[in-house]
This record gives sequence, structure tokens and C-alpha cells, in this order.
Amino acid sequence: METTEDISAYADMEIHADMLADSVRTNAYRLAILRCWEQIRGKAVVDVGAGTGILSLFCVQAGARKVYAIEASALAEETRKVVRANGMEGRIEVLHGRAEEVELPEKVDVIVSEWMGYSLLYESMLPSVIHVRDKWLKKGGLMLPSEASLYLAPIADADTEDRLQFWEDIGTKYHVDMSALKPYAHRCITRKVQVKPVQMEDILASPAKVMTFDLTEVSVEDLSCVKTAFSFKCYGWSQMQGFSTWFDVVFPSPKPVLLSTSPYSQETHWMQSVMSLDDPVQVTQDTRVKGVLKITPNSRNNRFLDMTLRYSVDNREEVERIYPMDDCR
Amino acid sequence: METTEDISAYADMEIHADMLADSVRTNAYRLAILRCWEQIRGKAVVDVGAGTGILSLFCVQAGARKVYAIEASALAEETRKVVRANGMEGRIEVLHGRAEEVELPEKVDVIVSEWMGYSLLYESMLPSVIHVRDKWLKKGGLMLPSEASLYLAPIADADTEDRLQFWEDIGTKYHVDMSALKPYAHRCITRKVQVKPVQMEDILASPAKVMTFDLTEVSVEDLSCVKTAFSFKCYGWSQMQGFSTWFDVVFPSPKPVLLSTSPYSQETHWMQSVMSLDDPVQVTQDTRVKGVLKITPNSRNNRFLDMTLRYSVDNREEVERIYPMDDCR
Repeated sequence: METTEDISAYADMEIHADMLADSVRTNAYRLAILRCWEQIRGKAVVDVGAGTGILSLFCVQAGARKVYAIEASALAEETRKVVRANGMEGRIEVLHGRAEEVELPEKVDVIVSEWMGYSLLYESMLPSVIHVRDKWLKKGGLMLPSEASLYLAPIADADTEDRLQFWEDIGTKYHVDMSALKPYAHRCITRKVQVKPVQMEDILASPAKVMTFDLTEVSVEDLSCVKTAFSFKCYGWSQMQGFSTWFDVVFPSPKPVLLSTSPYSQETHWMQSVMSLDDPVQVTQDTRVKGVLKITPNSRNNRFLDMTLRYSVDNREEVERIYPMDDCR
Repeated sequence: METTEDISAYADMEIHADMLADSVRTNAYRLAILRCWEQIRGKAVVDVGAGTGILSLFCVQAGARKVYAIEASALAEETRKVVRANGMEGRIEVLHGRAEEVELPEKVDVIVSEWMGYSLLYESMLPSVIHVRDKWLKKGGLMLPSEASLYLAPIADADTEDRLQFWEDIGTKYHVDMSALKPYAHRCITRKVQVKPVQMEDILASPAKVMTFDLTEVSVEDLSCVKTAFSFKCYGWSQMQGFSTWFDVVFPSPKPVLLSTSPYSQETHWMQSVMSLDDPVQVTQDTRVKGVLKITPNSRNNRFLDMTLRYSVDNREEVERIYPMDDCR
């Protein structure tokens, strides 16, 4: 029968389906794990936040002697069924508990985890991965992935324009005028970070790699306030309507594998993140857009993020705004 | 500047856009209001839960002397802007407050409200409408709509089958077996009432009108436990995988207007509601499906509903299950 604690996990099943269906993501992990077979064969592996268990299965396919699959949610019981259905119950041990609290019978050679959230750090499991690394990974052990980078670029944003146009058009249909709602609708849409696909043709300048985390070394403190300066030179004439962020992670196999969520790559379930300007700015070739991006825990709920953007366009006045990143699903 | 209380209203803007974009809904109200011009011209009207204010605008177009547009959310300030943009500030008074608490300067001749939720009663504003009716509507005044009915039918549900098939197929793509998750995914999907479109070809028997509310008379107590028996004779051979509910409302103009959310009508943003069986049943021509449907406040949160379904198929054992209707958006 159903119990109360099951219910939150139920909601996540749709998310697990989306993640598995994201073949850019899942194939990148599969390829990276299989390419690392020489470092995995006969070794002990931890899968942090195992979910449906698919990365643990890949590790056994790559020859792992033992995989400890840590899953905090009630899904763990289902993960065990997946392990049994694949005949891997001798090789994969599902540990139902928080990554910070589980006890392993041995130190491990490899940590695999798909911990990345929207815009890399939103609701990410990285602090748990760091905790497990510091406690259970052998010195010189393998991190999969081993490096993560965040990117930023100024963008045009036709999608927001289209959504606002609705308020102009809908009244006409019913012989009334609803366009007075447009400014409010604009505030609704642009109040926080939007997770949505950005088209590559909307990128207005060469994207900047604004930060890189070496996952073999990064500490939880390093993540508590991330701050970086940026400077762009625009390609050409356009309305600049916002900034977009995305990320990639690198797997250090002999032939490294890159999992990119860039608008220049195939779309993933992470899409891109967009911070819309309150007042769009006209840019042209070589317009200089510079400023500082800061990522901190959300002021109301530290599971969430605040993206603080300070920017200026050529010699115009500097603008600063906070974009909360809450409830982005 | 933004205040804390604005934020919940922000989320609703998308919902207001969906409601306006639903032309079946909005045109039915527009047509009904304009057809009632003889009863509205020169009269006082209350719009309960005015939202963007569009129904109030229609009432002025139909000749109302005065419309009191009650809106509890922070959207009320925006509704005022819509009223001004349409040059109706002399005819529409926006009252920012709860319907149960606002004071009107006069009794009114007409109440218009779009109070219906999914499956008619989910998060519906009907209790507020009843309160306003009992306090402010003149004896014999006009209710728009004046009648609401709920329908029930046994259905096939190919959509749920397709969603579950995912767990069979996805593993194959990555050379693992994820089908062990199928029963759990089934529980996730079918745990509660699903709001989704039902195709008319999935209806397995002539739908039953299981309840009708006369909105000029219904009381809040009448809504607190709704219970009705049903009996269906199936059309023919099929897998019966669930039950679906939907509703319609009637506007009593000289030529009545029907706003139907039936699978036999054009789709609306309400779609249909589906309760999936744990164990699908084979039915054939004249298979008898009978039972009782009960709708009560949800045991954990009385903003939500519990749909309790007790049914038997021919002489098989009776089955009873509660389908919560919570967080359906």
C-alpha cells in the first residue's frame, strides 16, 4: 500500500523519465563510463543520487567489481528491482539514505554522479558529491565528470516578445482591449530566471566561460558565493533582451567526453537559463557589454539560487538586478 | 516595486492567459452575456473572481449600468488598468478583496462568474459565488451560469498505456533493462485524478449525467459531500481502463448557451478528468458497469478533493478506491 513518504517520489518519476529520455545526457554518461573501462574494471564505484540506477548499470557493464548506488528518496526500493531485473544484484548495492550519512564498507576508486541542475547549480547535488568524495574516494580516484564550466552570453529573446504579444492580440478576438496587462505580464515572465531553449541565432556575442570547477578539488565553500566578471563585444545590430547561461561537464577518459548544454549543441532537458532585461538595449557591432555575475543561495530558501547581474552597455549607466531561481520546474 | 504578495499572482498570469486563450470558454460567456442584454441593460452586476476583468467588460458591452468586479488577488490593480484602457471606469468598479467580505453599495440584478474548476469542483470558487448570491442578489435575479452538471463515463486510456510503454522502450536504447520500473510508474500516474484530454473514441458507454446543481438554489452544504450512483451498459469489446468526468454549465438566455467540456465537444483548458483502474477490465457489448461516485474535501487539505469510486463490472467483485485531486495544475 501507499505511504505518505512515497508521494514526493511519485512526482519525480516524470523527471526521471525526462532525464532518461534525454539521450544527449544519458549517452554522454554511457560513453564516458565505457571509455573509462580500464579505470573501472575490477574497481569499487559510488553512484551519488542513483535515481533509477542507470549509471550504476553502465558501471557494471564497464567491469566494476562493486557499485554503491546511493539514493535518498523512496525510489531506492525501485532501483533495487531494476538491479535485480538486470541480474546485477551481486555487483550493485543500493543504499537508501542521504549521501552524507551512508556508510560504505570500503573506500572507492571512482565516483560517478549526475548532479547538475538548471544553470549548473540550481538544486544541484554537488555538495553531496563533494562530501562523498572527501570521505570515501581514494586519493587520486576518478571523478565522473571531473570538470564543470558555466557559460554566459548576451541574447535577443523573441520568445518573451511573442508571449507578450498575446496580450495585444487576445482582446481583439473578443472586441475588448487587454493590452493594459502587457507590462504586468512582462514583470511576471521576467521576474526570475527562465529555463527555456535559447536559439543559437539569438546569441549576440561570443559566449564567455565565466567559471570552471575542478571537481577533484572544489569545496562546498567555493560554491557558496560564486562571482565572476564578464565582457562581451557584440557581433552586430540587435535588440539585446537578456543574458543566458548554460554549462558543460567533461569526463576525463583517454578520449574525453563533453556533455554540453550549449545552444550550439543538441537540446537537453536542461535547456538554457535566461535572465531578461527590464529595458532591452539596442546593440551594434562591437558594442561592449560588461559586468559581474554573482550566484548565491536564495535569500528566502537556500535550496534555491539568486543570480545577481550587474552590467553596463558601452558607456550607459550600470544596471543591477537580482533574478531569483526558485521553483524552476 | 515588487512586494512579497505579488508573487503568487504572478504565477497565475499564465493561467489567466490560458483561460482567455480558451475561446470555447470565453466565447460562451461573451455570447451568453450579450444574449442576456435585456436583463443586463441598465442593471447592476457582480463579477465574482473577475481576474483580468474580461467578463465585466462584456457586461458593460451588454448595457450594464454598473459592474462590481470582485478580485481577491493582487491582480485587482491590473484589472483596474484594463477597465481604464477600455474607457469603462465609470461603469466598472474593481473591488480588491475576498468575495465573502466585500461590501457593495446596493443589491444587484445579475451575478456573473467563471468559478468552475477541473472536474467542476476542484479548487472551484462556487462557495464564494453562493455567498455573494445569498447576500447581494435581488430575489429572482439572474445567475450566469444558472446550472452546472457533472458527467461520468467508463473509458479506455491509451495515453496511460503509451506513457508506461516508455519504461519498456527506454532501456533498449541504452542496452539495459528499465522495465522493472513500469509498475511503480503505473502507480505514480494513476495514484490521483489525472487532468488530460480524453478522446471521444475512448468512451465505452453512454455517459451519465451524475449530478446537476441549480445555481440559483444550491447551498454550500450541498457541495460538502456529493454522492451519486451510476450504471453503464458498454458499447462493445474493449479494455476498460478507467472512468472520466467532465462538466457543462448552462446560461439561461432566451436562447440558452451551453458551455460543455465534454470529449464530444471542442477541447477546453479544463480538458477531462481521469481515474485509472488499478486493474483494467475486459468489457464487451452490454457489460454492466455500476457503482457510486462520492466527492468530498481531501482528507489532508480541504482546498482539494477526494473522488471515491466504488464500482463493479457485471457480477465481478466490487472495487473501491479513493482518487485524490490535489495539485492538478
